Amino acid sequence: MKDLIIGIDLGGTTTKSAIIKTNGELLHQWTIETNTEQNGKQIIPTIIASIKQTIVEQQIAMARILGIGMGSPGAVDRSNGTVSGAYNLHWHHTEPINEQFAQAFACPFFLENDANAAALGEKWKGSGEDQANVVFLTLGTGVGGGMIVNHELVVGRHGCAGEIGHLHVTDDEEFQCTCGNQGCLESIASATGLVHLMKKLAETFKEESSLKEKVRSHQQVSVKEIFDAAKEQDVFAVHVVTEFSYYIGLACAHITNTLDPDKIILGGGIAAAGQVLLDHVRLSCERFVFPKARNKERLTLANLGNTAGVLGAAYLVLSKQKG
Amino acid sequence: MKDLIIGIDLGGTTTKSAIIKTNGELLHQWTIETNTEQNGKQIIPTIIASIKQTIVEQQIAMARILGIGMGSPGAVDRSNGTVSGAYNLHWHHTEPINEQFAQAFACPFFLENDANAAALGEKWKGSGEDQANVVFLTLGTGVGGGMIVNHELVVGRHGCAGEIGHLHVTDDEEFQCTCGNQGCLESIASATGLVHLMKKLAETFKEESSLKEKVRSHQQVSVKEIFDAAKEQDVFAVHVVTEFSYYIGLACAHITNTLDPDKIILGGGIAAAGQVLLDHVRLSCERFVFPKARNKERLTLANLGNTAGVLGAAYLVLSKQKG
Repeated sequence: MKDLIIGIDLGGTTTKSAIIKTNGELLHQWTIETNTEQNGKQIIPTIIASIKQTIVEQQIAMARILGIGMGSPGAVDRSNGTVSGAYNLHWHHTEPINEQFAQAFACPFFLENDANAAALGEKWKGSGEDQANVVFLTLGTGVGGGMIVNHELVVGRHGCAGEIGHLHVTDDEEFQCTCGNQGCLESIASATGLVHLMKKLAETFKEESSLKEKVRSHQQVSVKEIFDAAKEQDVFAVHVVTEFSYYIGLACAHITNTLDPDKIILGGGIAAAGQVLLDHVRLSCERFVFPKARNKERLTLANLGNTAGVLGAAYLVLSKQKG
Repeated sequence: MKDLIIGIDLGGTTTKSAIIKTNGELLHQWTIETNTEQNGKQIIPTIIASIKQTIVEQQIAMARILGIGMGSPGAVDRSNGTVSGAYNLHWHHTEPINEQFAQAFACPFFLENDANAAALGEKWKGSGEDQANVVFLTLGTGVGGGMIVNHELVVGRHGCAGEIGHLHVTDDEEFQCTCGNQGCLESIASATGLVHLMKKLAETFKEESSLKEKVRSHQQVSVKEIFDAAKEQDVFAVHVVTEFSYYIGLACAHITNTLDPDKIILGGGIAAAGQVLLDHVRLSCERFVFPKARNKERLTLANLGNTAGVLGAAYLVLSKQKG
């Protein structure tokens, strides 16, 4: 009986892997360093060797493995099974992935980008509650998204489905995006964007605030400090978080008026701010959502943390095998 | 062999029906008046009788019918097979539809709202070129949408997927929407919205224009007149069409950055304006789309006209039978 799946979450410094039951139960997890020496030549062979070794150690028969799934940074070419532009892995070339796995294992192998894999994980075993239509928003260095419709990942014509970070949310010309467009969500709602927004707001904010003074005197302020100050009711911090969340909520409303999904999950480093962020984003989102689609349960925080990637990679195998 | 489908497009004044091959070829079409007397009690029985009669006249064996699909105005309850709120049909009650068809025919019956049925028709046999991911935008009295992802209609958690008319596109408080929100696309891009926008723009427009004079002297101006004047390079008309299309293009960019669909099809009465509208909408959309997803072939005009509804109703049967 094929009752096990191997999920891999390839990252710039470490690679997480897991043997997962087809019901999502994590049987065994392990982490190895990602060996990026020699232009990352050893990355995939090292992962393959560690899987083979673990299977032996755990005394698991290969016949039980339904398939192997992997989430990778960079641009994934699903038809050719390659990854390009994964500079943090030192892959300055197009790395063939499926080929190496096909030579090492007889079972099917599926590749997806890491953000989409995390989205599938949260959909399956996290805050997505295994609903059919789930959108995952990562708020971190950049702003990304994963779209799941009818239990399947939507990648889009040019692989650009879920480019939520590039929804146009403001006409303020000060917010230039790295993509070349202007007013993209990412130019405000990424970590860099948030700091930019805060500095801009500090210029005109009238009330007294210790956070504002810090910003005005050019001291370094971390994202965590902003949210901590907001939790302690610093008036300027609350203003910054409200503005910041306004734009994320507006983008969530755009997604809702388009797809009316069961869940929109906020993840990534900034989502660690937790309830204070969620409350503000909800308020803004509800304001712009078509009244009949309003639903307080839709917006939620990611809850899997580090295991979203391996679980999503495993779900990828499950959904592809069904299809 | 089940090689035929019956598609029905129920409308407020007439009902179009067709016998359609499973490859989409229209074998026979006919139209009857929609009998709305006695609170629309006779509507469904009349349609059923006309189908039975046509099948006999056309000498078609019932065994060849794969199923019957119907698009209806109003709010469709897919699980109960009912329609409510279809006031133009004089149904002030919840009308049981599936029940009546099940009693009359042995083959499967599927119900969808008319906008979604038209979307499926354009996807299958119209400008959608049978691509997997197609969005249909109707620009008419209201602004509606149909979302098709992976060849299937997306209805959403509350049946609100495709509420494109309620995407927030402006912070200008003058544009109040009937839904209660402010700045919805529908408040600008519907027929009423366009006239409202034109009146607002006429107040401040500086250059000379015969269209502007008509508006300022409170003469009635039709949607067609606006686009005709734009085609003839009336400066004010061009300004109005540019502004109007800006908002539709922005909404199309939101859809693209979310789903990266193969096609976005503009339909409905206003889309009859044709190329001048398409060109302006494209210009605005491309501006806000993530660069990698830019594609001049995505935005297109509907091309089926009156047959979109019956073809889409037939496609509904096909897609449900496969699923």
